[in-house]
Amino acid sequence: MKPFEWNQDTETLIIVDQRVLPSVEYITCSKLEDVLGAIKNMIVRGAPAIAIAGLYGLALHALNIKQEKGVLVNFDKFLIELKKGATQLIKARPTAVNLSLLLEKVLEGISQLSNIEEIIRFILREAELAIDEDRKMNLQIAENGLELIKDNFTILTHCHTGGLAGPSGEYGTAQGIILRAFEKKRNIKVFATETRPFLQGRITAFELAQENVDITIIPDNAAGILIYQKRIDCVIVGADRVLSTGHVFNKIGTYALAVLAKYHKIPFYVALPTTTFDFENKLEDIIVEQRDPKEVKFCGDQQIVPNNVPVFNPAFDITPPELITAIICNKGVLYPPFEKSIDTLRTFL
Amino acid sequence: MKPFEWNQDTETLIIVDQRVLPSVEYITCSKLEDVLGAIKNMIVRGAPAIAIAGLYGLALHALNIKQEKGVLVNFDKFLIELKKGATQLIKARPTAVNLSLLLEKVLEGISQLSNIEEIIRFILREAELAIDEDRKMNLQIAENGLELIKDNFTILTHCHTGGLAGPSGEYGTAQGIILRAFEKKRNIKVFATETRPFLQGRITAFELAQENVDITIIPDNAAGILIYQKRIDCVIVGADRVLSTGHVFNKIGTYALAVLAKYHKIPFYVALPTTTFDFENKLEDIIVEQRDPKEVKFCGDQQIVPNNVPVFNPAFDITPPELITAIICNKGVLYPPFEKSIDTLRTFL
Repeated sequence: MKPFEWNQDTETLIIVDQRVLPSVEYITCSKLEDVLGAIKNMIVRGAPAIAIAGLYGLALHALNIKQEKGVLVNFDKFLIELKKGATQLIKARPTAVNLSLLLEKVLEGISQLSNIEEIIRFILREAELAIDEDRKMNLQIAENGLELIKDNFTILTHCHTGGLAGPSGEYGTAQGIILRAFEKKRNIKVFATETRPFLQGRITAFELAQENVDITIIPDNAAGILIYQKRIDCVIVGADRVLSTGHVFNKIGTYALAVLAKYHKIPFYVALPTTTFDFENKLEDIIVEQRDPKEVKFCGDQQIVPNNVPVFNPAFDITPPELITAIICNKGVLYPPFEKSIDTLRTFL
Repeated sequence: MKPFEWNQDTETLIIVDQRVLPSVEYITCSKLEDVLGAIKNMIVRGAPAIAIAGLYGLALHALNIKQEKGVLVNFDKFLIELKKGATQLIKARPTAVNLSLLLEKVLEGISQLSNIEEIIRFILREAELAIDEDRKMNLQIAENGLELIKDNFTILTHCHTGGLAGPSGEYGTAQGIILRAFEKKRNIKVFATETRPFLQGRITAFELAQENVDITIIPDNAAGILIYQKRIDCVIVGADRVLSTGHVFNKIGTYALAVLAKYHKIPFYVALPTTTFDFENKLEDIIVEQRDPKEVKFCGDQQIVPNNVPVFNPAFDITPPELITAIICNKGVLYPPFEKSIDTLRTFL
C-alpha cells in the first residue's frame, strides 16, 4: 500500500490516514494547508514519506497561487508565496531532515526557471523522480542489510519503518531489511513495540502480518524483559536525521533500546536512505519536536491525565554513535568510527 | 483516598474502580467472585492493596459458605471451601507476593480455631490489623527514604505506588517517599511514566497533583531522553516481590529504567514494605503473570493491533540486584550486597 498518490486528473493528493490503521481511510488534499495538516497530524508520517508529501504540498500551493481572481499572478509574487509555503512545510515537522533537504533542493532547481507552468511541471516531476529514487534506495538498503540478519534471528524493531513510511509504499528502511530476509526464506521472528504515544507499531503489525512475517506486538515497556531473557538477537530501527557525527534522531524510545542493546551486547542497527543524512548541522542546532500533550493525555476517548498535570511529549530522541553497531544505507553498511564512514558518503551525494 | 472500605452493616467491600481514574467510581463486592474479578481486572491493584482486598474476599467467601439452604454447613466442609477460595485468590495475580503470604498466614491462624463465626471475626480482624500495619510501614518507608531525596532533586518514577496502591490509602511506598520529601519542603520535581498498557501513571498524576507536587507525565518511551539529558537525579520504584537475592519483580518497564540508570550512573531505588519480601522462593519458581492481549490490542475503543497479530503482555519484569542502588523498606535502607542486607531482616519478621 502506498501512503499517498497524486491524482493527475483532479490535481489532488490522496493520502491514507495512518492514524486509523488497520482501518483504511483516505483523505484528499487540494491545497497547501491540507498537506500541512496531514503532516502535522501524522495522517502521513515517516521521514521519507513526508518529504514527498511535502513536495506535493508545494505543488498544490503552486497550483493555487498561480492565479489571483482568475488572473495569473506576477512571477516574483508567485516565487515569494511559493517560498513561504516551503518554509511552512519545513516547520511542520522540524526534526526529520528529508523534507527540508528535498524542498531546498527543489527550490534551488526552481530558481533556474522563469515560468510558472514550467515550475509546476518541475515540482511534480521532481516528486516522481524522488519516489523512484526512494524505491531504489529502499531495495538497496534491504539488500545491504541482509548480511546482518542471520537465519533463526529474533529481531526487535521500534516505530514503523515499512512501506507506508516511504513514498513508494515498498519495503521501507529497517522493516525493508526484515521483509527482504523473510523473502530470502530466512527463519525470522519479529517483536515490534507499539510505540506510544502515536502507536506506529500498529502499522508495522498491519504491514508485516499482510506479508505473513511472524510478528508479535509488545508494549514499549516489555522490550527490557525480552532482551533480559536473551530472546532478541538484534535491534533494528530507522532514522529521521543522522548527523555526520553518527548521532541518530529517531522516534522517542529509540535511545532506551540502544542502551539496553549495549548493556546486553546485542547489535543495534540503524537503517536509512542517504537522504536522511544531515551533513550540515550540529547536534545543538537540531530542534526536537514537542508534540501535542493530548497524544498522551488521552487514550482513545478516555482522558487519563488530569487537566492540571503537564505532559512531556518529545517526538524524537538522540542516540549517540557509541551505542550503534552499524548504519545500513543504500550505499552500504557503515561501521564505527562513524565520523569517518559517514564522511565517505559525501563523494556519492 | 482509600482503595476500598469494608462496610460492616451490609457486609460488603466497596472498591474504587482504579481503571477509570481520574474519574471516581465505586464497585460493591458481596462475594468471593466479585473480589476475584476486581483483582484480576485491576479494579483494585498495587501489591499491598490487593493483599488486603483478597483477605476481605476470603471474609466474603466465609460469610457466603457458612450456610447451605439456610443450614450452617459442616465445619470440615467450610474449611475445605475456604481453602479453595484462598487458592483462587492467590492464583488471581500470582506474581505479587503480599497476597499469598498474607492469606497463608491467616489460614495458619484459622487452623487454630474451631468455630465458623470465630473464623469470620478472625479474618476481619486480621484485615484491620494488616491495614494498620501497612499504614505504619508506609510512614516508616517514607521516613527512611527521606535521606536519599535531596533538595532540588528531579525524580523519575514508574507505575503507581501511592496511597491507592496500599490498603490504608496513605503515602504508599516509592510515592510515599516523594510525598514525604515534598511535605518536608524539599524542592522536588517528579516525572512519572504513563506506564502502558494499564496506564497507572494516571493514578500517580491524580494523587500527586492533589497534593500539589510538581508532576509531569511522560510516555514510557520518553524516560530515555530525560536521563540522557541529565534531567533526572534518581529513579525510584515500588516492588511486587523481592527475593532474598535482591531480585525485584515489579511493573513491566522497570528493568529498562534500571539499565538506563546504571548506564548513566544515577541511583536506582526500590521501596517496599517488608511484606513484599519473599524469603522462600527462588528466581525460577516465580510465575510472571501474562495479561490479556486486549490491554494492548485496544487503546480506548480503538483496535490498534490486527486480530491475527499476537501480543506479548507480561505484567512484570525482573530487575537483578546489580542494577539496584538501595532498597528502602520500613526497617531501614538496605545496600548491596543485598543477599546479606536482606538476610538481616529475617530476625525482624
